[in-house]
Amino acid sequence: MIVVLRPNVTEDQIGNVVRMVEQLDYRAHIIRGVERTVVACVGEERGEHQLEHLEALAYVERVLPVLRSFKLAAREVRPEGSRINVGGVEIGGRRLTVIAGPCAVESREQVEAAADGVRCAGAHLLRGGAYKPRTSPYAFQGMEAEGLGLLEAAGKRVRLPIVTEIMDPHDIDLFVEHADMLQVGARNAQNFSLLRRLGRIKKPVLLKRGMSTRLEEFLMAAEYILSEGNPNVVLCERGIRTFETATRNTLDLNAVPLLKEWTHLPVIVDPSHGTGIWSLVTPMALAAVAAGADGLLIEVHPNPQAARSDGPQQLKPERFAELMKSVAAVAGAVGRTL
Amino acid sequence: MIVVLRPNVTEDQIGNVVRMVEQLDYRAHIIRGVERTVVACVGEERGEHQLEHLEALAYVERVLPVLRSFKLAAREVRPEGSRINVGGVEIGGRRLTVIAGPCAVESREQVEAAADGVRCAGAHLLRGGAYKPRTSPYAFQGMEAEGLGLLEAAGKRVRLPIVTEIMDPHDIDLFVEHADMLQVGARNAQNFSLLRRLGRIKKPVLLKRGMSTRLEEFLMAAEYILSEGNPNVVLCERGIRTFETATRNTLDLNAVPLLKEWTHLPVIVDPSHGTGIWSLVTPMALAAVAAGADGLLIEVHPNPQAARSDGPQQLKPERFAELMKSVAAVAGAVGRTL
Amino acid sequence: MIVVLRPNVTEDQIGNVVRMVEQLDYRAHIIRGVERTVVACVGEERGEHQLEHLEALAYVERVLPVLRSFKLAAREVRPEGSRINVGGVEIGGRRLTVIAGPCAVESREQVEAAADGVRCAGAHLLRGGAYKPRTSPYAFQGMEAEGLGLLEAAGKRVRLPIVTEIMDPHDIDLFVEHADMLQVGARNAQNFSLLRRLGRIKKPVLLKRGMSTRLEEFLMAAEYILSEGNPNVVLCERGIRTFETATRNTLDLNAVPLLKEWTHLPVIVDPSHGTGIWSLVTPMALAAVAAGADGLLIEVHPNPQAARSDGPQQLKPERFAELMKSVAAVAGAVGRTL
Amino acid sequence: MIVVLRPNVTEDQIGNVVRMVEQLDYRAHIIRGVERTVVACVGEERGEHQLEHLEALAYVERVLPVLRSFKLAAREVRPEGSRINVGGVEIGGRRLTVIAGPCAVESREQVEAAADGVRCAGAHLLRGGAYKPRTSPYAFQGMEAEGLGLLEAAGKRVRLPIVTEIMDPHDIDLFVEHADMLQVGARNAQNFSLLRRLGRIKKPVLLKRGMSTRLEEFLMAAEYILSEGNPNVVLCERGIRTFETATRNTLDLNAVPLLKEWTHLPVIVDPSHGTGIWSLVTPMALAAVAAGADGLLIEVHPNPQAARSDGPQQLKPERFAELMKSVAAVAGAVGRTL
Repeated sequence: MIVVLRPNVTEDQIGNVVRMVEQLDYRAHIIRGVERTVVACVGEERGEHQLEHLEALAYVERVLPVLRSFKLAAREVRPEGSRINVGGVEIGGRRLTVIAGPCAVESREQVEAAADGVRCAGAHLLRGGAYKPRTSPYAFQGMEAEGLGLLEAAGKRVRLPIVTEIMDPHDIDLFVEHADMLQVGARNAQNFSLLRRLGRIKKPVLLKRGMSTRLEEFLMAAEYILSEGNPNVVLCERGIRTFETATRNTLDLNAVPLLKEWTHLPVIVDPSHGTGIWSLVTPMALAAVAAGADGLLIEVHPNPQAARSDGPQQLKPERFAELMKSVAAVAGAVGRTL
Repeated sequence: MIVVLRPNVTEDQIGNVVRMVEQLDYRAHIIRGVERTVVACVGEERGEHQLEHLEALAYVERVLPVLRSFKLAAREVRPEGSRINVGGVEIGGRRLTVIAGPCAVESREQVEAAADGVRCAGAHLLRGGAYKPRTSPYAFQGMEAEGLGLLEAAGKRVRLPIVTEIMDPHDIDLFVEHADMLQVGARNAQNFSLLRRLGRIKKPVLLKRGMSTRLEEFLMAAEYILSEGNPNVVLCERGIRTFETATRNTLDLNAVPLLKEWTHLPVIVDPSHGTGIWSLVTPMALAAVAAGADGLLIEVHPNPQAARSDGPQQLKPERFAELMKSVAAVAGAVGRTL
Repeated sequence: MIVVLRPNVTEDQIGNVVRMVEQLDYRAHIIRGVERTVVACVGEERGEHQLEHLEALAYVERVLPVLRSFKLAAREVRPEGSRINVGGVEIGGRRLTVIAGPCAVESREQVEAAADGVRCAGAHLLRGGAYKPRTSPYAFQGMEAEGLGLLEAAGKRVRLPIVTEIMDPHDIDLFVEHADMLQVGARNAQNFSLLRRLGRIKKPVLLKRGMSTRLEEFLMAAEYILSEGNPNVVLCERGIRTFETATRNTLDLNAVPLLKEWTHLPVIVDPSHGTGIWSLVTPMALAAVAAGADGLLIEVHPNPQAARSDGPQQLKPERFAELMKSVAAVAGAVGRTL
Repeated sequence: MIVVLRPNVTEDQIGNVVRMVEQLDYRAHIIRGVERTVVACVGEERGEHQLEHLEALAYVERVLPVLRSFKLAAREVRPEGSRINVGGVEIGGRRLTVIAGPCAVESREQVEAAADGVRCAGAHLLRGGAYKPRTSPYAFQGMEAEGLGLLEAAGKRVRLPIVTEIMDPHDIDLFVEHADMLQVGARNAQNFSLLRRLGRIKKPVLLKRGMSTRLEEFLMAAEYILSEGNPNVVLCERGIRTFETATRNTLDLNAVPLLKEWTHLPVIVDPSHGTGIWSLVTPMALAAVAAGADGLLIEVHPNPQAARSDGPQQLKPERFAELMKSVAAVAGAVGRTL
């Protein structure tokens, strides 16, 4: 940490800061500049936030952290990158992983039609929402436990492991029993109670970035799961909230190469939520692969205009099959396979 | 809803849209403009989101909602405004309500010193965090149940009802027993599992706006609580996340008069989180009152530079006492009392 | 500047950085931490951006500036604050300054009616747009030179100095001759050609914050004018662009007390553009005064629904007169006069 | 336009609105819904903003535009897409166009070294800044006319047309004489005086998106140039300003396929400014091509750590050559050539 003092600080005040820094078990280096004096603090910075409180002193201008605060998620921990096994399917290797399926499970027929479609086109994992976080309490909230059962059955039928969103820590046992990968949605990206409980299971977790989560905070959310003992975390960029209203969200593909530098965890991209518009899904899926993503999450529905949620962003199975062909071509161009 | 069709749409396609609209039990009015044909849909729009899925059709350009989607929270429901009773203290009347206390409960001595300070200066409710949502799993996470007990005792001692944050639906019974008002933090503003459970109790809820929650979504979050049967909701503006980094958040005071137009629920403001800088807390508290807020939430700590969380934004009791005097003056100028 | 090196940096690389720092005439202090080595650079930081380019080195993680980069605008330069004289009216003293008038000059009758209204209600300066920056080239672009003449005449008639927006450096002579204060609009907040030319005149400049300008950048824009020799700059917060769409902009009142800490320049607030909704103008004007603003800019039109620009945010003269009464009350409560 | 009336509006008020709508030469359709009455206005909506002012009426809740407001830039005008000729190089066809060169022209040696490097690697146009918009007045402002001459000479030497940024309308003649394409930077994206003047020349214009410009506004900025008579506009996505601080800007690749749907103008992408970090430039360049961009703008400097501006985001010529190879591969995968 670098403690920047205000101009005209007295020697007593500098001494005060040094004393407080040392009480927190850091070594203090005083550096007297032309306009400011700064105190550089040397010690175990990560996980230690006490120094920041020096900003409460009237003669401290600001406290600048030198290190990023994630530890277990940092690239240095596993420079070769993590590979996460989801019911026999690996995420994080040279081969891209495609997760596909409807936004919400709506009926046996619908989820089976979707499962057939995505299986045929070559997806590796089947997704579908049974518990749905909806902005409005009056909107369809998902088929809940029944939906989870239908998804599990559909996955077995087409022999694809399943991924589905958990919203309430209370449901963890149910999800661990029936799902292969548990998704944490954008609205729960900083629901620390839920994250901590997911750290105590072994099932892989698909952690979506929150709508206003900075990348460093995103990795700190992963750190909640990792630090409780579950190493099986996959990150998912799904668009952030900006001033732009032409698209539902702003898919932040900068996040892909930057996260790959910062962390060993696999990074996948969800262009369905990231754009909110079906005609943009394929170009942005290709862009994600070109940017270095380890996989994709694509919403596919047999009949989008009759969907009970997120109709405008879901692809028909035919279009998804075309997307997969284009993805294979771009994957090849960047040294990956599908 | 207004369904805007693409240019060059055929009569068959228009007929298709009309048929789909009518199947969803709306009446359809076709309006043929110079450049576009639009279909206006008349019916019970609120709570009905199916029409939006027409955007999945290739010949539909977009679907524009006419109504804002909140119902029970709408001003029309109670034009005179709601007053919420918190352990005998009313929020929403002519008198402003000030909630004050430390960010986190850290020890018996600390919470008692804070309670004495805020009581003396004239606060109406005592706040303090026992369970703390922290960006880092390595930061102080709160004293949990023990902290809740200390806060309750401190509140009893100074005879102020207490407000504290709940993070996990699992803890509701504990909070209902020991706290007078349950706060939902910004990171849980769209944790719908938690909101729905809070709708099934009667204790008042202090609902903070999320960092990237639009005002309409904020009211939909309140609607989750209201629609489950708990009418005791107080809204709290606490700053949104923007590109500006000079302050921790951007306190959006526009929200105050706009929410007062849109909803009957009381609106209070938290300038401590809204700015993140102690020297800005008093001017922004005054601004909030001038903008029409029904109350304030102010963080007060006996010794901010030794605080275990959010030191830079907490006021010392002396400064809080000065803030209260200034607030009283501005309140008088806008026809309120303190 | 603090240069943070990557982990596992070699001694040679450290030596390299030190050498480059010294070549740029800084002294280099090496601080070896637990996880990172940092090089603190001591010298004249402001105005010197060369050190930032060390980030281009593969073994440098990042370069952190210690100082904020504005100089002449800094509070320390004139701790008592600047007072700017606009045609005999002072901005920046204990008395608040209110600038009011129509968004655009539309006709002699309209600008005279507006001038009478604002004069009667006690405004100190008359505003009106003659050259209008409009998002669409097909929208009304202002009456240009003719409008400037009408505004000047109306100002003379009611004996109020006038403020009007300049868009093109080419027009400076015309504006200097006919206007008392030149406004730079949000879209030109970083039009450095224009700013530099305004630095070479003596007429006061009303500099609006850009829609996505950070406060430090805002002061650097002022610095362009100051450093060319014109000390007469007044800053205007007018709302920033955020994800919130319920209001036209998000008026960032945090900016008021923060700018007052950072700079000696007066700060006024424009709640008309800051909200875009006439019913929010009065509460936000009061909030601005309570937050410590030195004045207000309010759009007033004799007949807003017939306005040729920005109708929804303009006040009728009667409402403006009520606003002035409320402003006087709040001003009194915070130790100011009107 | 759809005029949404407030609840409990009277028949007189509805009549009023209809009358005002008809006075503006629109036909009014009254639609009485369950909760709201709306008035649909039929007529030439584009370029007509008067209806919006009905929002100034107390009994009008809001006015919703049905059409997007750009005309000449709309895809329908030229469904096959525009191709812009820049000194013999075409932008907008099947072949991608790569513009490359240093951020700023710093010396004859530097610009020649850069020109050789980008020419060798296969770039089609040479860029370089002679007049530099810098946040700080104390930073290097460019070599101005001398720099323009050096760039022109370097371009001639390697036989590449040149692209350079214009900041001041006053300099247009100079730029028309010496440059092949004039760039409008992000900070001038809504400098309407400059745009209008650029509409009166025939030289192609490279129009960058502003940091907080919505896509519809971006096209309206292009519309300023088109409507004055210059059809030679190329759009450039270069990153928007969001809350994320890990990257300098957030490159919004969603903009690429969406703009390609909305407009016939070519769209290129600048990953150098869009990320601000050299190690992200190549992955984001590939992503841009995969998303459907018509070209790239890449900053290349022979010695980035000694650059006088934007060092951290410039590529060395060797890295740029590698980027070009990867771009060729991805281009092939999406049916384009380089």
